[in-house]
This record gives sequence, C-alpha cells and structure tokens, in this order.
Amino acid sequence: MPRKVDHQERRTQIADALMRVAAEQGLEAVSLRHVAAEAGVSAGMVQHYFRTKDEMMRFALEAVHVRSEARVNAAIAALGPDPAPRPLLRTLLTALLPLDDESRAIGRVALAFLAYTAVRPSGDPSLNEGTAQMAGFITALLPAPDPARAAGLLALMEGLGLYLLGGQYTAEQALSALDAHLDLLFS
Amino acid sequence: MPRKVDHQERRTQIADALMRVAAEQGLEAVSLRHVAAEAGVSAGMVQHYFRTKDEMMRFALEAVHVRSEARVNAAIAALGPDPAPRPLLRTLLTALLPLDDESRAIGRVALAFLAYTAVRPSGDPSLNEGTAQMAGFITALLPAPDPARAAGLLALMEGLGLYLLGGQYTAEQALSALDAHLDLLFS
Repeated sequence: MPRKVDHQERRTQIADALMRVAAEQGLEAVSLRHVAAEAGVSAGMVQHYFRTKDEMMRFALEAVHVRSEARVNAAIAALGPDPAPRPLLRTLLTALLPLDDESRAIGRVALAFLAYTAVRPSGDPSLNEGTAQMAGFITALLPAPDPARAAGLLALMEGLGLYLLGGQYTAEQALSALDAHLDLLFS
Repeated sequence: MPRKVDHQERRTQIADALMRVAAEQGLEAVSLRHVAAEAGVSAGMVQHYFRTKDEMMRFALEAVHVRSEARVNAAIAALGPDPAPRPLLRTLLTALLPLDDESRAIGRVALAFLAYTAVRPSGDPSLNEGTAQMAGFITALLPAPDPARAAGLLALMEGLGLYLLGGQYTAEQALSALDAHLDLLFS
C-alpha cells in the first residue's frame, strides 16, 4: 500500500517547486505545467491543490515568509541572550537582505510576487500585515520610537535588497549604507 | 503615398504599448502578440523592430528612464532658480515615487523589469550606471557628502516606491518616512 502523502506536505512540495522555478527562471516561467514538471507531479495534481495561479502564488509567498522568519530567528538567537537594540536591529535587517544563495532565492520570489501583485488592484492584505508588524517591532527598538523612522528603515532595507538583486550595489556597499543609517538613528 | 514612419518613432510606439501592457496586466502578459495588438501593428512589425523580448524590455526601460528624468527636471525647474539642497533633494526623490497615475505606471514597469532581470545572471549595466550617477548627484547635495548615506537615501526612496506600489504604505506614510530621514541627514 503506498504511503499516504499528507495534504500539507504535498502543497509544500509544489510551492517549493514554484519557488525554484520563479527564482531560477522568473515569474513568467511560473505555469501549471512548469511547476508540475519541477515538482515531479502531474499538472492535474497541481490543479488539485491549487485551483488558480493566484492561490499558488499566495502559498509560495507564505512559504517565503516562513523561511525569512526562520532565518531572522536563527540569526537573532545566535546573538545570545538580551542583545542590545542596535545589533539586534542590524542582525534582523541583514538576515532579510539577499546576501547568500538562499536569501537571494527568497528575494527573487518576493520580487516576482510584488511585480505580480502590483498590477492587481486588490493587492495582498498579508503583505500589509507583515510590514506593519515589522514596523512596530522596529519602532520599539529605536532610541526615539518614531514610526516614520521605522518605516524609513524598513524601506531602506527593502531598497537595499532590490539593489543587491539588481546588481546595482555590492554586499559591501549595501552594508555600509545600512550602518551609516543606523549611525544616524543611534547617534 | 503613405507617410514614411520614422524608425525611432515606431520603436517608441511599440515600447509605449509594451509599457501599457506591463503596467496594466503585468510582465507575464508582455508577449509579441499582446504588444503588437496594443500598438495596433502586426506581430511581424514588432519583430522587425525588436528581435527578442530582451531587446524590447531594454528599450521600454530606457523609455521609463527618459520619462522619469523629464518628471524630475520639470519638478526641479518648478522650484525656481538656486533651490537649497534639502528641498531640491526632496523634490527629486518625490518626483520618482509612484504617487500619481503616470509615476505608478512607470514604477510598475520598472518593477516588472527588475523582476525580469533579477533572474538573469548578467543583469543590466545601464541600471548600474543610472544608480551610480544618481548616488553621485545626491552625495554632493548632502551636508556631509558621504557616499554610504547617499546610497542609503536612494535605497530608502526605492523601498518607499516598492511599498507604495504594493499598498503597504500610504502616500502620507511614505512622505513622512522620507521627511524623517531628511531630518536625520540635515540635522
């Protein structure tokens, strides 16, 4: 008797395949057929788990968020107990920048998703929640807990990520810009 | 005898159509067929002017740059002669944010293009040049002419644009974040 594949496990397998396709070949390569081939399942199987491309994209973005969160948590845990606000913030933001293979793949999928949702009028409410939550967390770590400064720092991190993916900034330039900004905020 | 259509004019007409398709329907809708239909020409005509999708995308991004530059120049000219560095910077960066219909269309195309190039190993050297040029210009306007601060300000603008397009920030939030950052830089 074949092992019963868990529903969630199969969805994750398909979302992983979607992420690989999006990260390696770009969003326009994300199709039912491509994703099915990459996951090693039939197109009908993909359709069984995700009725639309929108559904598949949303699940992949969730997977990206889960991985990003795991990366951030691991990096913060490595700081030891009770880190000071500035190294905590720097570690958090650096963990989200596309500076290694995994985070570059994550960044590409996030970028592809943003490009995908930017033309859809409704947008994605989960994006807003994630950003608002992060902005609140950052605000509490700043010496002057100003939401506008936190919003700026988050945007700076996002822009650095974009320039790293696009190749306009080197890792060194991006980290210098982040440190210069933290200098301003913590001076 | 039919009017002879200028080569450059025809290319621009096709690139405009590409921009409308990308801005309204997303990058995955950008195909020879779609762009030809939007431009009101044959697919063969599009292929005559752009042999590959890469060529078409590059030309559209150039068109985006030309329009962005025209927007920035008009906004700066409206400041009158010899504007002070801070209002000049604010005007420059605000003109590049997706805060009205035209700049949102420009932003969507730029985002689609970034998502498109991020998965291509070579990237696009013209992106780097444009960013480096802008960073140099910004550096010269800062009270402390620090390239890392200029790189951060540029990244902040880019990130604000991303969050405006994605709907995470309102126009008011984005402008507050920009002003809070300029306060830090000019204090």
